[in-house]
Amino acid sequence: MNLRMIKYTLGWLLVFEAAFFVVPMLTALVYLESAGLGFLWSALICLALGGLLVLKKPKKSTIYAKEGFVIVALSWIVMSIFGSLPFLFTGVTDSFVDALFETSSGFTTTGASIFRTVEDLPKCILMWRSFTHWVGGMGVLVFIMAFLPLGGGQNMHIMRAESPGPEVSKLVPKVKHTALILYSIYFALTVLQFIILLFSGMSAFDAINTAFSTAGTGGFGIRNDSFSSFSAVQQIIVTVFMLVFSINFNSYYLALRLKFREAFNNEVRTFLLVVAVSIGIVAFNIYGVYGTVGEALRHAAFNVASLISTTGFTTANFDLWPSLAKTVLVLVMFIGACAGSTGGGMKVSRLVIAFKGFAREINTLVHPKQVKKITIDKRAVDGEVIRSVNSYLACYILVFALSLLLITIDGRDLVTNFTAVAATLNNVGPGLAGVGPVSNFADFSVFSKLVLIFDMIAGRLELFPMLVLLSPAAWKKA
Amino acid sequence: MNLRMIKYTLGWLLVFEAAFFVVPMLTALVYLESAGLGFLWSALICLALGGLLVLKKPKKSTIYAKEGFVIVALSWIVMSIFGSLPFLFTGVTDSFVDALFETSSGFTTTGASIFRTVEDLPKCILMWRSFTHWVGGMGVLVFIMAFLPLGGGQNMHIMRAESPGPEVSKLVPKVKHTALILYSIYFALTVLQFIILLFSGMSAFDAINTAFSTAGTGGFGIRNDSFSSFSAVQQIIVTVFMLVFSINFNSYYLALRLKFREAFNNEVRTFLLVVAVSIGIVAFNIYGVYGTVGEALRHAAFNVASLISTTGFTTANFDLWPSLAKTVLVLVMFIGACAGSTGGGMKVSRLVIAFKGFAREINTLVHPKQVKKITIDKRAVDGEVIRSVNSYLACYILVFALSLLLITIDGRDLVTNFTAVAATLNNVGPGLAGVGPVSNFADFSVFSKLVLIFDMIAGRLELFPMLVLLSPAAWKKA
Repeated sequence: MNLRMIKYTLGWLLVFEAAFFVVPMLTALVYLESAGLGFLWSALICLALGGLLVLKKPKKSTIYAKEGFVIVALSWIVMSIFGSLPFLFTGVTDSFVDALFETSSGFTTTGASIFRTVEDLPKCILMWRSFTHWVGGMGVLVFIMAFLPLGGGQNMHIMRAESPGPEVSKLVPKVKHTALILYSIYFALTVLQFIILLFSGMSAFDAINTAFSTAGTGGFGIRNDSFSSFSAVQQIIVTVFMLVFSINFNSYYLALRLKFREAFNNEVRTFLLVVAVSIGIVAFNIYGVYGTVGEALRHAAFNVASLISTTGFTTANFDLWPSLAKTVLVLVMFIGACAGSTGGGMKVSRLVIAFKGFAREINTLVHPKQVKKITIDKRAVDGEVIRSVNSYLACYILVFALSLLLITIDGRDLVTNFTAVAATLNNVGPGLAGVGPVSNFADFSVFSKLVLIFDMIAGRLELFPMLVLLSPAAWKKA
Repeated sequence: MNLRMIKYTLGWLLVFEAAFFVVPMLTALVYLESAGLGFLWSALICLALGGLLVLKKPKKSTIYAKEGFVIVALSWIVMSIFGSLPFLFTGVTDSFVDALFETSSGFTTTGASIFRTVEDLPKCILMWRSFTHWVGGMGVLVFIMAFLPLGGGQNMHIMRAESPGPEVSKLVPKVKHTALILYSIYFALTVLQFIILLFSGMSAFDAINTAFSTAGTGGFGIRNDSFSSFSAVQQIIVTVFMLVFSINFNSYYLALRLKFREAFNNEVRTFLLVVAVSIGIVAFNIYGVYGTVGEALRHAAFNVASLISTTGFTTANFDLWPSLAKTVLVLVMFIGACAGSTGGGMKVSRLVIAFKGFAREINTLVHPKQVKKITIDKRAVDGEVIRSVNSYLACYILVFALSLLLITIDGRDLVTNFTAVAATLNNVGPGLAGVGPVSNFADFSVFSKLVLIFDMIAGRLELFPMLVLLSPAAWKKA
């Protein structure tokens, strides 16, 4: 294990985090909020500590897969710990675990909150919450690695560990260039949403927060009722953008290069089909609640898009909807977005691979002598990818069941516990019952909050980095 | 597809089913119940129809894997349909779907009932319900094939399709002899339990029903309160036997041959560990409800054993227990028993393989150049078995999610729907809330009952036979 390289990368992470604090500091300046000082102190601490760690560049900068996983896992933990300082310095909470919960929830783009109300929070705090979503959405390490003066070969390990989905494909030969293309698309789409929201009559502050939160598929709101009191047009704009940010960014690059057939691939088509069917079922089921087709469709579309993209904004207390609508919402939370997007969940492509594996099995049972490969978009899926998808599923079930058991010690009801784990492990935010749209995560015990923090980070990093970090094998000397 | 051979086998199945009806007929004779006539008519219908089908023995008796799956799937459906006739003829229900539900629940050893009370049912009906558990427990087709004058090579396909667990191992070179050994162990253990129950002071009728129901890990009760009003000693006896019938019968054969190390294999050890830990957690959690360690332990042991063995007897309304105890009970329903036992669920060995696959993946991530095989009991697990386990998991999740959606159309609450699917797909019987220990499945719509009937049969046959039956590939001409 190249410990020096790990320390060095964590150092740079802290330096970048200090820079991130500039955004809420500027917000505090604009609104003349004294809370801005909390961010200044936090930035100075990060800068000092980070500066110390990056002073000496390690001689041996080679890292392997295991260092990639460990660096990514540790970075997200460290980033969340230091990112929670402003919550404590500004006094909006005095519990470190609550501050850590809120920050992990932000960076992992979960959007589960321990604040009962948000409208009374300083604007710089609101901005920090939204900004953590935006930073976490596309991944921090890949971003930092694109700037760090390190050998190019290393970055692939980091990218593989941090990027969502069963496979990482480079758009262009260099990882650095691939990263720059993806971040440019991310930036451009965020700006586009911001401008459209301004045109819809939203204030600049609301628009920038909403754009950050949507782009990262985060879900921290700036109003106590999440998105319920925004106008219908604004809800529709956000619906569209939640879906836009759920699609593999590679598709946008391919579309820009006019490769439409490749852009509109199996995963995108499956995703849109699932979205359409889910909206249809939910709209039909809640028609009785709203009385008009338009209203039912708008609420169905918004909340389905919000939960499948794992954003977590809401326009209605869907906990009061009929069972079928609620069940569809819970199921799409598990499905999640496309690989290579900012959305969470299991990812559509992973489920497609798993189900194609099962269809192949049925075929093998019928024709034992036929050996069929699993193909997606006319390309055979690598055996290693299939194996990794299957391991992911088994691991997901294990982590889910264990987390459920651990938070159930608190004694809350089954629907609350089940959807609390689903909402954090899939990086969604709200669940049902005790963690429904009008509730929050404040009432869990400290122990349960720590479990859910683990779930949020493990979910965002798709389990393996956190498990490699905890695996004794990774730390054994060769 | 060898259709003649399928018809021929179904014919023999009906002839055997006619013979099965003798057991409730004798019961009716002993208790002078006129309901016995319902069984007589049913037997005559089965005999006539079965006789017609077996008149002409097919010239080509060769069958392949796909016929094996189709025969097994169709047999369980046909057996359930004809087994439901007595419920209609005796007038205990006038709904065909209810009768079919009860019979499928019986043969699949689920034990979910549509009867609100059972104490007022004729004794021959109670006997038939318990007897279907016993018949279904060890599998019918393998039993029939052991008697049929067919070539030996064919039986392996049937055995593979009907036996529970990821692998089928022959104890002795001939499938027929392996089957005879296993059925002898089954018979002997059932008689042993019957005798011990008699010694505990149970009436012969109660003892034989309880023995049948426990041996098949079924769970149909003969009292309205399931097992609550039986004595503590009787509850403890049944606890032990539910666990006995959850262990791979191969282990008993190996133990009889003094191969204790092989008998006490990884799956058995894991199963007993899970049972012990679950009982510990539940007992600790319900201590407050019962007040004494003994009471808490007895109820915890009985209900954990009942749900992990997927029997479904209860000594208490565990729906009123604290969340942690309920969550443990729901989780063990999914784990289920050992492969090669009469219990249902996912099976311990399947989960062990899945989790070893995930541990191997972590190891591969840490040491990409090491190629490790998954080993259990120092034996490498075949790649084909691993693939089949993974397909099973993916398929299980798909069937579960679809069933959940379909029965949710009824509009009942989430816990009821979730545990109703869990209780049927895992062949347990009771769930929580609306399908808890003091409730039953009577109130579901006809459509939901059909979905749950599918789940019970698909669960008992471990998904693949039912899915091959429904797969167009199986029916395409080569």
